[in-house]
Amino acid sequence: MQRIHDSFARQGMMTTLGATLDAVREGHVTISAPVTPATSQQQGFGHAALTFALGDSAAGYAALTLLPENEVVTSEMKIHLLSPAIGQRLIARGRVVKPGRRLMVVMAEVFAERDGAGKQIALLTGTMVPVPL
Amino acid sequence: MQRIHDSFARQGMMTTLGATLDAVREGHVTISAPVTPATSQQQGFGHAALTFALGDSAAGYAALTLLPENEVVTSEMKIHLLSPAIGQRLIARGRVVKPGRRLMVVMAEVFAERDGAGKQIALLTGTMVPVPL
Amino acid sequence: MQRIHDSFARQGMMTTLGATLDAVREGHVTISAPVTPATSQQQGFGHAALTFALGDSAAGYAALTLLPENEVVTSEMKIHLLSPAIGQRLIARGRVVKPGRRLMVVMAEVFAERDGAGKQIALLTGTMVPVPL
Amino acid sequence: MQRIHDSFARQGMMTTLGATLDAVREGHVTISAPVTPATSQQQGFGHAALTFALGDSAAGYAALTLLPENEVVTSEMKIHLLSPAIGQRLIARGRVVKPGRRLMVVMAEVFAERDGAGKQIALLTGTMVPVPL
Repeated sequence: MQRIHDSFARQGMMTTLGATLDAVREGHVTISAPVTPATSQQQGFGHAALTFALGDSAAGYAALTLLPENEVVTSEMKIHLLSPAIGQRLIARGRVVKPGRRLMVVMAEVFAERDGAGKQIALLTGTMVPVPL
Repeated sequence: MQRIHDSFARQGMMTTLGATLDAVREGHVTISAPVTPATSQQQGFGHAALTFALGDSAAGYAALTLLPENEVVTSEMKIHLLSPAIGQRLIARGRVVKPGRRLMVVMAEVFAERDGAGKQIALLTGTMVPVPL
Repeated sequence: MQRIHDSFARQGMMTTLGATLDAVREGHVTISAPVTPATSQQQGFGHAALTFALGDSAAGYAALTLLPENEVVTSEMKIHLLSPAIGQRLIARGRVVKPGRRLMVVMAEVFAERDGAGKQIALLTGTMVPVPL
Repeated sequence: MQRIHDSFARQGMMTTLGATLDAVREGHVTISAPVTPATSQQQGFGHAALTFALGDSAAGYAALTLLPENEVVTSEMKIHLLSPAIGQRLIARGRVVKPGRRLMVVMAEVFAERDGAGKQIALLTGTMVPVPL
């Protein structure tokens, strides 16, 4: 889906975070980024805003896969931070829980990859709103 | 409160976002950052992750002002994005809603400053957990 | 605003909880109910579902005051329970944070009245969606 | 687990709603209740507070199965209402997402049973806090 890749490429924040759009299929999107000193919090782990950025974007693009004529914006998003973001890379998997014309309920899980093993570090649920292109 | 400034200075993400710690008093913290192409979303407005980063950090440091012996971590945070982040600068004001030894309920409001006028663009509520230094 | 009172009167749950619609003005609604053994939790305090019912309804009707042609439904709601619901009566004050045609961001605060003194016990933020009558 | 059944039986609200504790195993609890005029909203469907009551309780008791020495209280809970609560009965399945000594992250899904078929109507995520018995 080229328009998802095009929209992702226009997000300066995704470039700043070193994020990549790894997988796109109907209702599901995967985005990941490295944990670096530039995106860390005060203890050296990945910052909550990095985890949020990946989870929110994966969830939003998952919604966009079902909306060929629109952009989407986040209306609200809740993130549970389950464990510290310790590892080399964070991987966010977003999906649509409930599609709709006026709003879409979405979800994302974020995992930290550490020496080859993955551990869930966050759970997000939120609401995406379609807006005209 | 020097320890708040020291903790803030150790957050690589805050440096990456160009954020500054503007005001610290008991139970209240203000953090701001410019909106730049490096922190924008696909339409050129401030990215939701920038708004989240400022609001979450302002709320967390507001909690930390009441916890002289600890660091804090975000357990969960919900953000309502009320309007697009259009403007030169985003300003987040965090405060403690309900202090506690085991967890603190916090809140933040984020404003976009555009040509001198401020507009609220986000409302956050969340839970901070004290952790040992 | 008669239509708010009419809608409230049709809610069987409000009758079951003994709730009353105490004040209605543009963008603001107050609803209260007694704490009784029939609405308590296992320790004898008011049940979280009672607090939720009052806060969610006050927030929803606050939105409805701004929507003369519609009903509203809750799309999502987050409740922070700040203190146990100890007292004779719970009072919920709902208000609109951000109106909109497609969705409205709302808020409510719930107070417990105990021997004449009020204490905030909950904070809710959520999203209401207008639906046709 | 007798202590879960005992705690449930002490909740006046559960009796008022006609709720039953249907299944209890480590980390998972199922609670259900009929949709009646006494628990309906203004359009005659199950009230959001009924859905919340079942989901929140199922999630809380799921946490309690892992805490033999405690009671739990809800610190915060977010509910997404996905579809109207249309049907004869609502069934809530709660589970623990992330256990912890100081707080537990929990989740619940609520289904409406209509003429033998089930449909998910709500998704809840929240935080439970252990308290002394």
